[in-house]
Amino acid sequence: MLIEKYKVQEANDGATAEHKRRFEFAASTINNVEGVLQKLQDFQIAIPSWALGAGGTRFGRFSIGGEPSNLEEKIEDVGLLHALNRSSGAISLHIPWDIPENATSIKALAAQHGLRFDAVNSNTFQDQKGQEQSYKFGSLQHTNKAVRKQAIEHNIEVIKQGVELGSDSLTVWLADGSSFPGQLNFRKAFQNTLESLKEIYAALPDNWKMFVEYKAFEPNFYSMTVGDWGQSLLYASKLGEKAFTLVDLGHHLPNANIEQIVSLLLMEGKLGGFHFNDSKYGDDDLTVGSINPYQLFLIFNELVEGMDAKGMNHATDLGWMIDASHNIKDPLEDLLQSVEAIKIAYAQALLVDTKALAAAREENDVVKAQEILQEAYRNDVRPLVAEARLRAGGALQPLEFYRQNRVRESLIKQRGLQTVATGL
Amino acid sequence: MLIEKYKVQEANDGATAEHKRRFEFAASTINNVEGVLQKLQDFQIAIPSWALGAGGTRFGRFSIGGEPSNLEEKIEDVGLLHALNRSSGAISLHIPWDIPENATSIKALAAQHGLRFDAVNSNTFQDQKGQEQSYKFGSLQHTNKAVRKQAIEHNIEVIKQGVELGSDSLTVWLADGSSFPGQLNFRKAFQNTLESLKEIYAALPDNWKMFVEYKAFEPNFYSMTVGDWGQSLLYASKLGEKAFTLVDLGHHLPNANIEQIVSLLLMEGKLGGFHFNDSKYGDDDLTVGSINPYQLFLIFNELVEGMDAKGMNHATDLGWMIDASHNIKDPLEDLLQSVEAIKIAYAQALLVDTKALAAAREENDVVKAQEILQEAYRNDVRPLVAEARLRAGGALQPLEFYRQNRVRESLIKQRGLQTVATGL
Amino acid sequence: MLIEKYKVQEANDGATAEHKRRFEFAASTINNVEGVLQKLQDFQIAIPSWALGAGGTRFGRFSIGGEPSNLEEKIEDVGLLHALNRSSGAISLHIPWDIPENATSIKALAAQHGLRFDAVNSNTFQDQKGQEQSYKFGSLQHTNKAVRKQAIEHNIEVIKQGVELGSDSLTVWLADGSSFPGQLNFRKAFQNTLESLKEIYAALPDNWKMFVEYKAFEPNFYSMTVGDWGQSLLYASKLGEKAFTLVDLGHHLPNANIEQIVSLLLMEGKLGGFHFNDSKYGDDDLTVGSINPYQLFLIFNELVEGMDAKGMNHATDLGWMIDASHNIKDPLEDLLQSVEAIKIAYAQALLVDTKALAAAREENDVVKAQEILQEAYRNDVRPLVAEARLRAGGALQPLEFYRQNRVRESLIKQRGLQTVATGL
Amino acid sequence: MLIEKYKVQEANDGATAEHKRRFEFAASTINNVEGVLQKLQDFQIAIPSWALGAGGTRFGRFSIGGEPSNLEEKIEDVGLLHALNRSSGAISLHIPWDIPENATSIKALAAQHGLRFDAVNSNTFQDQKGQEQSYKFGSLQHTNKAVRKQAIEHNIEVIKQGVELGSDSLTVWLADGSSFPGQLNFRKAFQNTLESLKEIYAALPDNWKMFVEYKAFEPNFYSMTVGDWGQSLLYASKLGEKAFTLVDLGHHLPNANIEQIVSLLLMEGKLGGFHFNDSKYGDDDLTVGSINPYQLFLIFNELVEGMDAKGMNHATDLGWMIDASHNIKDPLEDLLQSVEAIKIAYAQALLVDTKALAAAREENDVVKAQEILQEAYRNDVRPLVAEARLRAGGALQPLEFYRQNRVRESLIKQRGLQTVATGL
Repeated sequence: MLIEKYKVQEANDGATAEHKRRFEFAASTINNVEGVLQKLQDFQIAIPSWALGAGGTRFGRFSIGGEPSNLEEKIEDVGLLHALNRSSGAISLHIPWDIPENATSIKALAAQHGLRFDAVNSNTFQDQKGQEQSYKFGSLQHTNKAVRKQAIEHNIEVIKQGVELGSDSLTVWLADGSSFPGQLNFRKAFQNTLESLKEIYAALPDNWKMFVEYKAFEPNFYSMTVGDWGQSLLYASKLGEKAFTLVDLGHHLPNANIEQIVSLLLMEGKLGGFHFNDSKYGDDDLTVGSINPYQLFLIFNELVEGMDAKGMNHATDLGWMIDASHNIKDPLEDLLQSVEAIKIAYAQALLVDTKALAAAREENDVVKAQEILQEAYRNDVRPLVAEARLRAGGALQPLEFYRQNRVRESLIKQRGLQTVATGL
Repeated sequence: MLIEKYKVQEANDGATAEHKRRFEFAASTINNVEGVLQKLQDFQIAIPSWALGAGGTRFGRFSIGGEPSNLEEKIEDVGLLHALNRSSGAISLHIPWDIPENATSIKALAAQHGLRFDAVNSNTFQDQKGQEQSYKFGSLQHTNKAVRKQAIEHNIEVIKQGVELGSDSLTVWLADGSSFPGQLNFRKAFQNTLESLKEIYAALPDNWKMFVEYKAFEPNFYSMTVGDWGQSLLYASKLGEKAFTLVDLGHHLPNANIEQIVSLLLMEGKLGGFHFNDSKYGDDDLTVGSINPYQLFLIFNELVEGMDAKGMNHATDLGWMIDASHNIKDPLEDLLQSVEAIKIAYAQALLVDTKALAAAREENDVVKAQEILQEAYRNDVRPLVAEARLRAGGALQPLEFYRQNRVRESLIKQRGLQTVATGL
Repeated sequence: MLIEKYKVQEANDGATAEHKRRFEFAASTINNVEGVLQKLQDFQIAIPSWALGAGGTRFGRFSIGGEPSNLEEKIEDVGLLHALNRSSGAISLHIPWDIPENATSIKALAAQHGLRFDAVNSNTFQDQKGQEQSYKFGSLQHTNKAVRKQAIEHNIEVIKQGVELGSDSLTVWLADGSSFPGQLNFRKAFQNTLESLKEIYAALPDNWKMFVEYKAFEPNFYSMTVGDWGQSLLYASKLGEKAFTLVDLGHHLPNANIEQIVSLLLMEGKLGGFHFNDSKYGDDDLTVGSINPYQLFLIFNELVEGMDAKGMNHATDLGWMIDASHNIKDPLEDLLQSVEAIKIAYAQALLVDTKALAAAREENDVVKAQEILQEAYRNDVRPLVAEARLRAGGALQPLEFYRQNRVRESLIKQRGLQTVATGL
Repeated sequence: MLIEKYKVQEANDGATAEHKRRFEFAASTINNVEGVLQKLQDFQIAIPSWALGAGGTRFGRFSIGGEPSNLEEKIEDVGLLHALNRSSGAISLHIPWDIPENATSIKALAAQHGLRFDAVNSNTFQDQKGQEQSYKFGSLQHTNKAVRKQAIEHNIEVIKQGVELGSDSLTVWLADGSSFPGQLNFRKAFQNTLESLKEIYAALPDNWKMFVEYKAFEPNFYSMTVGDWGQSLLYASKLGEKAFTLVDLGHHLPNANIEQIVSLLLMEGKLGGFHFNDSKYGDDDLTVGSINPYQLFLIFNELVEGMDAKGMNHATDLGWMIDASHNIKDPLEDLLQSVEAIKIAYAQALLVDTKALAAAREENDVVKAQEILQEAYRNDVRPLVAEARLRAGGALQPLEFYRQNRVRESLIKQRGLQTVATGL
């Protein structure tokens, strides 16, 4: 299904006057509006192909209807999001869930929607039909060399798929670990994993990055072999300059200070990218910004400050992706909410008076430092985000548009009620 | 598959001498050995029908082979455990995963194995094929009366099934809750749930109990409508004297003091039963005693002390059940380990010098109180547990027997490699 | 030190034009501005007497200078806050830190500043000089009746002090609990505490309330005898209709859903009051809204909705108090920030479209329910809070006023650098 | 006060028969008893000087009486412990709480008691009287160079004190961090800290080690500048080969897998030492092994396996220290319990069948791996620990001896009831 531009235009027209009023007010309170708007326009968040169907928990899964059942339909869905918010201009594939049969035609389809291919993701946490070796006891960490070999080759295959699509990074998330004390020799698991990663790393094209994602727990419930940023950084450092740490917001122990981790990884030149979501208990994979939007803002504050300090390009020097798995919301609506929350946090971070903040910190003026951050955060920046979207050709109110145009109903009509997207 | 008694006898014979030596030493250091042994023999832990197949996480499931694919085979598996450890003399069914086609013959089969039917469990967290209403947004809490009605009727049906099998309790675990702020009116969700429970309660036979199980999170990740012991106690109190709280060890927030909860529920006369497992992060459903065996002992210490204070019968006045879901172990081996861990903790608790403990507490002698508990805990009580098992006709070394007799291999030969037990 | 009204007026005058512009915009986007403003004006948050000096941790304390060293100076400090924000119209005393020598003159002094006396707080967690019995092993829970008696009498004495000052509620926070497994018989500790509370309850004047505060851990590190809302509710229910649960935001286990607790306590008619602060790890006592302002909003959303459903008066039917202990900020600045954060969250909650929310919930429209909450939350309501403050005679920008008028410097000049306020 | 050897001998004599019986049984079930006993004898745990007085929380402190009020008395107390358990042969000083006036005589005194001086500890988290710069906003991280300089010089002074006493390591624990978002530039705090540590490192004698201790939270409640093992490892790696990470068991986020951290730090050659204690919620500083003794065993299992793999000497190649702060126990009794718990865990770890474990791991036999660990853990190793103590000239039952000889009463008689040891 395609969003017709004139319809977006029509809908926008009806809302422009009020938007203008709000935008002008918002603009009146800040400096350098144009710079902020440009950055907001440039900032694109990749959509993972597995977020387009209803997610589930081990207790069950409830389909939404109209889910995309092949790669073409997934691209169509991301294209639809991008047409509305102009901020979802990339798709992140998961192999083997999304192996393209014909890379050329898939690339052409993506291009039609203005999409590029973000990081490709390997999967060594599930056994695929007909697979020779099982990942029951891990993949890159496995005590059996044949299993490691199979997992390494799968990752190299994923790189190849990515090369054909024009992707330039590989995300390696490992479920490897142990669920019971005694099960693993932690050092050997680390060493096996490192050796395996080295072989994959050796297959990386020159311009590629490898993202080593960490996770504190689940699906293993005693130890994870890439369990925290410290471990990921060790791997990335030992691998080389193309290897980086990837931060998923839901992959930490309770109460972790994620923004500090982000800052230190930037300091070390080893932050590679982000998986956005929100959570209250564990890897809950909730809509971005639905539980703790201030934390999201604090993270963006570190990103903006840290990237600027290194002269990095916000839009292109890190990998930005949503990673969520939606059970009780329409996945497309959820993604619209997530992207909006990210843009809001980013806009707020751009409004921080960094000079005043630096001065307050220098003087240990804790009260003032907090005021400066909250001054930026308490702003209503939605009109700025909307204006950037408008200028980029998107919808002023993407969610309202989606609902009023009964997009889900159209998708169900087109694809049926019983389709099930591959993924969790 | 049946465990032949003579084989157990043979295996025991080979190990008796060493066992005797160890038992005599263990017995020499404690008072009232016979009383302890009798209690250990009497203590039976129900096996849930869904723990007999390989469990899984949302990230995947790895079959074990030889899994029971119908109720008869599940009873056979529990019978097998019971033949080995003489402590698994009950099975807890999950409807609709285990609807008996013919209650009489199922009862007869269970009787052959010396098994009774423990609490029956309803399931309103998954949609079954052909089900009219969906539980996507909850069951007993649902805003739509038709959904609540369907869930109520399902529970009443479960009671009926239970009555036919000779069970005398219903465990209600609800996945009901919300995953996003705003989703629920907490009070209305509570009230709907309470009203629904009342209708189910009204259908309870006179001699039945209803167990209201609580859980802090998962599968809902913002709120759970029976989320902690306080909420469960509120429901149970409002329902009446046949309603009780059920404690599952994995259903708490981090760092919760479960033993105190147990003590207070006993004080209120509202503790109904237990789901044993162990965990490090959440509802990890790990083998009992595999992560924190001292906590397990402390819980049993409260159970023994609290039940004795009320003149309760350890073996029969509370519902004891394992609730675990095993991914990387042979489920039967895992259950043997779990039962052993429970018996060890119970034995240690029986050895606590309660009189001295009471005196130390009276004098706030914290050092001594700790010494008294650890004196009991640091004992090696395995010979006592083995002796009780031996006297009851079980195997001295159940796990070794299981492995040496290649039971899993026999089950695979008999049932095939690809069977999948119903359950999570 | 007194804040002279003309100075406030002067400062406001300089900022009025810009404020007016912002307020008009804010007002233009909401219904019923006047109703909201009135509620904001009515809402008063009590300041605890112990928050006026620099707090500390067990690792050290760093004085701020100019701290109030007697009750008169503490009242002066709260008066100063109230003069600036017109929302701190009450003071909550802690006995024995703040025993008034002459109740009549103290009341007169408070009245001069427009302050009333909120809940009085007893202290049985520290030994005072010359005290006969020690609270080392608890107070109301103590195994020794003489200790309990002393603690009961202290509480009754606190009530008497409160009566003389015109207070009408007693907050009982107990450090009682245990730090080591074995130390306590949980049931006996509960029963002793309950019996002790009953004696205190019996001494309550007819129009008084008793607030039973719970806390998950600290200073005891194994169990707390009033450890969670479930326990507090048990006590309050057994005590009678004048007993209520008090919620302190920092007194929960990690990841607790506090807003749900609030909702259920309101449902039960047993929510008594609030201690506001913020925290990341435990009872960190940080400035309100400094860590997770969205959670604060969600709590206020439940408060507004739940109180309205019961026809309760927001301003007067619950006890509102800050409870924080500040180490590295000027305590008065910190309190200004805390009050502002509370007012902002309250204002946002007042803007929630409750009708639309109820409808979305009825239809399980999770996306919309979230949108409705975030629509309210993402508003910049600071101009509303400022307007309410302005109308009540306060400063448009309290913190700026405080700094520009060098209030702390004046206090130091007046009281000295080395004064130390009683408290933690 | 000195423990007279003949008294220990007398007490032992009365208990020898029963001990012999138990030891013989214990010895009969294990291989290489003599090797185990020798290792147990060699293993010494340093006692921190600040653990000898009653600890406290921010809510209060309850003295125990007879506390040591100077360094001589502290050495006497540790000597007393060592006389009883022969495992506390070192003392760890805290500067400025324990500045020796005369190093030579202090060394002589320690030598009389068979004690050596373990790591010296600096203190830059409190302001000392007359100190020029304040550590309110940190020390080595401080934005003000003068503060950093003062803190660096203090550390160098501590090294000098240590050199005179024959110590050979410096433990740097920093309270540095922030309590509010915005307060710190994390990178600059890290860089300042690193630069400061480099200056201290430069002052280390050749044979010295520097231990960089990490802590997740408290006394700062938003961020800590050495907050986890990853950060500590970064510092230690950048500093050089004399810098190591120190692990304190209570300094982690909830649910952290400490044993894995230990294993990886050993792998990197960067584990320096240990602070033993136990905890349920945070840095609770409870008696070692009082909350989760299995975790302690698992940690020792990693230590033994990891050190053996590197050919390290258990007794001398890492720094072993207790770090606890006792509120409601007699500190000396508490330390006796802590040392006993450590020795038990170490003994259990020495009994692990490492060959069988390695084989089970190789085959991913998770059940067996768990059995092997639990086989070692479930042993009652107390007779082994007692035998080692007996052979080393200690008391068979240190705690009983301490009580029967009324040591605390003697100390009170000697030192008075009101003495207060320096420390927390």
